[in-house]
Amino acid sequence: MNKFEEKTVHTEKVYEGKIIDLEIDDVILPNKKTSKREIVRHPGAVAILAMTGEGKIIMVEQYRKPLGKSIIEIPAGKLEPGEESVKTAARELEEETGYAARQFDFIMSYYTSPGFADEKIELFLAKDLYKVEEQSLGDDDEFVELIELTPTEAIEYIKQERIHDAKTVHAVYYALMKEV
Amino acid sequence: MNKFEEKTVHTEKVYEGKIIDLEIDDVILPNKKTSKREIVRHPGAVAILAMTGEGKIIMVEQYRKPLGKSIIEIPAGKLEPGEESVKTAARELEEETGYAARQFDFIMSYYTSPGFADEKIELFLAKDLYKVEEQSLGDDDEFVELIELTPTEAIEYIKQERIHDAKTVHAVYYALMKEV
Repeated sequence: MNKFEEKTVHTEKVYEGKIIDLEIDDVILPNKKTSKREIVRHPGAVAILAMTGEGKIIMVEQYRKPLGKSIIEIPAGKLEPGEESVKTAARELEEETGYAARQFDFIMSYYTSPGFADEKIELFLAKDLYKVEEQSLGDDDEFVELIELTPTEAIEYIKQERIHDAKTVHAVYYALMKEV
Repeated sequence: MNKFEEKTVHTEKVYEGKIIDLEIDDVILPNKKTSKREIVRHPGAVAILAMTGEGKIIMVEQYRKPLGKSIIEIPAGKLEPGEESVKTAARELEEETGYAARQFDFIMSYYTSPGFADEKIELFLAKDLYKVEEQSLGDDDEFVELIELTPTEAIEYIKQERIHDAKTVHAVYYALMKEV
């Protein structure tokens, strides 16, 4: 779909980072005027909706520096170059929670901030879970704590803003509606 | 909640833009090692779930330069300095769709990309709608087209990735579950 397409006439890369890049595009609008678009480039990510045999959603609490607080989220992680996204999902689930799954079903993808970023999250449903090891608390610069919540408890945590990010809010509603 | 807090030892602003700023924070992790965090600062935004008397969700199609395609979203817009968020919601709904509402109820807020951005969206339910004028197609550098979808049609559009952003996906599930 290209309705109201904006043509790029110039791109300036203003920052290249570890996770994100920032570029400024000069564009021509549908009314022929020009404008600037600030665009964050991100490699994309996966998120995993995983439920225990007792019907609890597996989540992790972690500190989010941009927010200045810790929040409770479904397991997630960014894509690595050349890695298939379902493999990233399996790796992140195990690293962050100590759980593995015999099956991963793709649910859907969505962009998180389409106004200024190209980050796309692929959401997977992890089925047939088993415990691999005690939780290893994420990777080198990531510290997470395992938390398991029923969907009803999760709705309460959304009200309290302890769950406070779009992907986790959506996953809780999805779990409640689909009764996965 | 400050579990696993990361202390900032230095902040470098690398870009100040029209909508977003970018800063790089040097932080001390819970294990006393240091790391860098790339943080996009955003003023925050509102999004509006508005349904017609016929039970259709009011949406707009617009081109999203970071994605390189147009998608269909619920009306939304960034906060203006000093403007109360419910006023932003009323203004954006009218500008983008030509509808006004006699009541706005706060539903919830959520962060869109907690790993690298502080953008927070406040979601409002617009009630008791009335048509103010023909749709004016957004503001100066924004071009949008009004689209009204039943929740069932919206689920189909999610599968087709014509609806393809987290806030709209969540709003559709919320509308279906709450039968607002």
